[in-house]
Amino acid sequence: MLLSEVASRLNGTLTGDGALEVTALASLAEARDGDLSFYKDRKYAKQLTATKATAILVENSWTGETSAKAVIRVSDPNAAFGTAAVWFAPPEMVREPGIHPTAVVAETAKIGARVHIGPWTVVEDGAEIGDDAVIEAQVFIGQRVKIGEGSHLYPQVTVREGCVLGKRVILHCGVRIGGDGYGYNPVFLPNGTIRVDKIPQLGIVELCDDVEIGSNTTIDRARFGRTRVGYSSKIDNLVQIGHNVQVGNYSGIIAQAGVAGSTIIGDGCLIWAQAGISGHIKIHDRAQVGPAAGVTKDVPEGEYYIGAPACPKKEFAQQLLVPRQVEKMKQQLADLKRQVSELSAQLGYKA
Amino acid sequence: MLLSEVASRLNGTLTGDGALEVTALASLAEARDGDLSFYKDRKYAKQLTATKATAILVENSWTGETSAKAVIRVSDPNAAFGTAAVWFAPPEMVREPGIHPTAVVAETAKIGARVHIGPWTVVEDGAEIGDDAVIEAQVFIGQRVKIGEGSHLYPQVTVREGCVLGKRVILHCGVRIGGDGYGYNPVFLPNGTIRVDKIPQLGIVELCDDVEIGSNTTIDRARFGRTRVGYSSKIDNLVQIGHNVQVGNYSGIIAQAGVAGSTIIGDGCLIWAQAGISGHIKIHDRAQVGPAAGVTKDVPEGEYYIGAPACPKKEFAQQLLVPRQVEKMKQQLADLKRQVSELSAQLGYKA
Amino acid sequence: MLLSEVASRLNGTLTGDGALEVTALASLAEARDGDLSFYKDRKYAKQLTATKATAILVENSWTGETSAKAVIRVSDPNAAFGTAAVWFAPPEMVREPGIHPTAVVAETAKIGARVHIGPWTVVEDGAEIGDDAVIEAQVFIGQRVKIGEGSHLYPQVTVREGCVLGKRVILHCGVRIGGDGYGYNPVFLPNGTIRVDKIPQLGIVELCDDVEIGSNTTIDRARFGRTRVGYSSKIDNLVQIGHNVQVGNYSGIIAQAGVAGSTIIGDGCLIWAQAGISGHIKIHDRAQVGPAAGVTKDVPEGEYYIGAPACPKKEFAQQLLVPRQVEKMKQQLADLKRQVSELSAQLGYKA
Repeated sequence: MLLSEVASRLNGTLTGDGALEVTALASLAEARDGDLSFYKDRKYAKQLTATKATAILVENSWTGETSAKAVIRVSDPNAAFGTAAVWFAPPEMVREPGIHPTAVVAETAKIGARVHIGPWTVVEDGAEIGDDAVIEAQVFIGQRVKIGEGSHLYPQVTVREGCVLGKRVILHCGVRIGGDGYGYNPVFLPNGTIRVDKIPQLGIVELCDDVEIGSNTTIDRARFGRTRVGYSSKIDNLVQIGHNVQVGNYSGIIAQAGVAGSTIIGDGCLIWAQAGISGHIKIHDRAQVGPAAGVTKDVPEGEYYIGAPACPKKEFAQQLLVPRQVEKMKQQLADLKRQVSELSAQLGYKA
Repeated sequence: MLLSEVASRLNGTLTGDGALEVTALASLAEARDGDLSFYKDRKYAKQLTATKATAILVENSWTGETSAKAVIRVSDPNAAFGTAAVWFAPPEMVREPGIHPTAVVAETAKIGARVHIGPWTVVEDGAEIGDDAVIEAQVFIGQRVKIGEGSHLYPQVTVREGCVLGKRVILHCGVRIGGDGYGYNPVFLPNGTIRVDKIPQLGIVELCDDVEIGSNTTIDRARFGRTRVGYSSKIDNLVQIGHNVQVGNYSGIIAQAGVAGSTIIGDGCLIWAQAGISGHIKIHDRAQVGPAAGVTKDVPEGEYYIGAPACPKKEFAQQLLVPRQVEKMKQQLADLKRQVSELSAQLGYKA
Repeated sequence: MLLSEVASRLNGTLTGDGALEVTALASLAEARDGDLSFYKDRKYAKQLTATKATAILVENSWTGETSAKAVIRVSDPNAAFGTAAVWFAPPEMVREPGIHPTAVVAETAKIGARVHIGPWTVVEDGAEIGDDAVIEAQVFIGQRVKIGEGSHLYPQVTVREGCVLGKRVILHCGVRIGGDGYGYNPVFLPNGTIRVDKIPQLGIVELCDDVEIGSNTTIDRARFGRTRVGYSSKIDNLVQIGHNVQVGNYSGIIAQAGVAGSTIIGDGCLIWAQAGISGHIKIHDRAQVGPAAGVTKDVPEGEYYIGAPACPKKEFAQQLLVPRQVEKMKQQLADLKRQVSELSAQLGYKA
């Protein structure tokens, strides 16, 4: 799009050549020739003269220098950038209703109105798919799985038998719903050998309305009953949710975190990236677990736990001071030692 | 199932309305209307009056209060719950022998008796699949792969060329067997640029009898020879096993742990969740590696290592006391300082 | 291959039965009957008498004992082993040009010369695949995706709409390119409930020439603009790359590491396994991040950071000494206390 058009569409004032063209968006640091960027936060001021952007959006009042070829002044650069983002975005994916001829859909499956089913997808016996759902290519939907209205399963998702998804659930590529939980009984045989018996995993996974799950995340089916993710909770990529875990409503779990079996996470919790949570404990409502924390016991309501083993944020901050305190104490000890030996000498002398 | 029937099938005594119906199982905390739960461990006593279960199984001798609508007394609530779990479980998946017409099976592949191959699965040249194996939908089996009798590959597993699976091996959805190991040689060119050469990964992966691998776990092929997982070892979800790693028999590796190249894990070891194990070291038989531990050197037989860098459990426990010890020493130091300066003053006075 | 042939092909001197056969390669520790192994590094000397290898390659000058049945003396055992590795490797996979009849390729897709497209693969509208590219079975290529010449996508990769791959890019099984980044706005409604709005993820992922990505790694599409991995950078298995992350050229990211949104990683950096890097920071050129490190702020050029929160390697090494220092200080404090109380007593006595 020509800069003249960008400026006019954003009600902005262009300084520079309106015949220049931009084809994409990027931050100041990432931008290259042909990119439109923006500047608002002074934190990024240094990048103004290093950016390779063709044009930048700035506030009307901005005065300064930039390496960008052109400047467009607007009232709110953030908002304007958000507006422009839509013009340069890939066209929104539209999946027309209809079942691709290559999909294998069991006769006993119930398919709602206006459902899209992509190529090579498998829908097994007794599965039910709600109205307006989009099931993309190469998806596997096991026997008796239920998928609510308006849900969207991206390519190569697997949902094993019996699992239940609410309305508007989004599963990204490679999500695994309903794998067997990890459970074995080692049996020590009289002859000295071991037999490892698999404990049957007889439950399901239930994902409530408006849940979204990131790429390649795995959620295991319950030992019995249900592993459950509550209303509007959002789980990022490569997360592991063990069997019988219960996640409440409006909670978030960031990438590569793991939650061991039977643990309960409340409403409005936030579990940061790479955190690990032991089994059979409870993270109470609105609590947070910091990045890479290792949580071994309950986290009280509204608390922020971090560290491994995890503790309240304040306590963790104090732990971080320990090395410096020890350094200081070493000095103090040396001083005291000297003083004491002086005193001792003095006293000896007197004696 | 009506409560009257549940009670009668379990030889239990029902207190409450036998016409109530239960349709699923859940723990006291997870239960909702229509669920059957159980109580045995006093740890969960508080939950008795908060549970939303329709009915609970309790010991014959139990007296107490509960928010459940009905109670069934039995001799062993745990065992009874296990029995009931089977009634409410999704019907066991049966995969009938036969090759789905949409599967692409190479003419040179050898398929055993009573094998099931699901839709959209690919079996390449020279692959061999043992009797009674179940290969579900959308699986990829590369050239010359061998799969033993009675193995079960869930949907969307990939096994690359040349890899060998024993009998009764279970691979859950999204498992990746035989990807190239991570190995490169950077070459610094005379002109100041770099070329990164890929080191050929010429080996295979070998999984022995009764191995089970969880969803989305990745096991890389060897640089040469074999990456190997021994008899009856069980690996959880999202685990990374590097090239040339050797896992012994009866060992367990829990979710999101990672083992770097050429490391040897003995028999009967247990590697807990999110642990990381460096390359080229040895975890000796029956050793354990704690959750999120970072192991950088050999772990002796039967030891439990934890922490990062990992050390024996006892030593780790002492490390955890350090912050409190430092706090205490600060107090002691202050006391001593005061005493010394008093002594000093006293002595000066005398002098 | 007969040992006589192995020895002759390697210009080596055989001690032992030339009619013995070897069928595979393995290290001394891993080897079993039928394997050829090698010995050079004295570190492994102990394994010489425990190995189950049929034959070992050793230096011409080697004298010693071994449990192997035969020995082949060569000038450089390492190099000879590398040469032999090729003979015993699975035959190199050749993917003949051609589109499998079961692939679903959109009419508007542009497919280059000599391209291989495997069974059940989907190539959507407007996608472009360069000459000599290999797209294996069960791959998903979204609308308008561009894939450069000579790239190789292994089975069950997904590349979502609009993403751009350079030349000779290698994606291993289960790689997910272009999933939505994790971004939501919680809206607190007047009636006390919450609505969680999804922030549209309007950008793409760009992978430059010679990038290689390991199994089941996920790279999210940008909020706007591009998530980018630079020339010849190599990413291992199960890594998470958040939206808008920029990875430079020649950088490496080892298994299970995670990089949060908008972070910049420079050229020639090395991020070790299981490290976690916060969002919106910068890892400068040639810096390294140690295993399991938790990086919360910028890492200067060429530095090695480790620990959580991460700090320079030297500082981390000092932190590791703290427990021992505290132990020592406890002793010193006790000594001082005793001295002071003796002095005090002495002084009191004198007084």
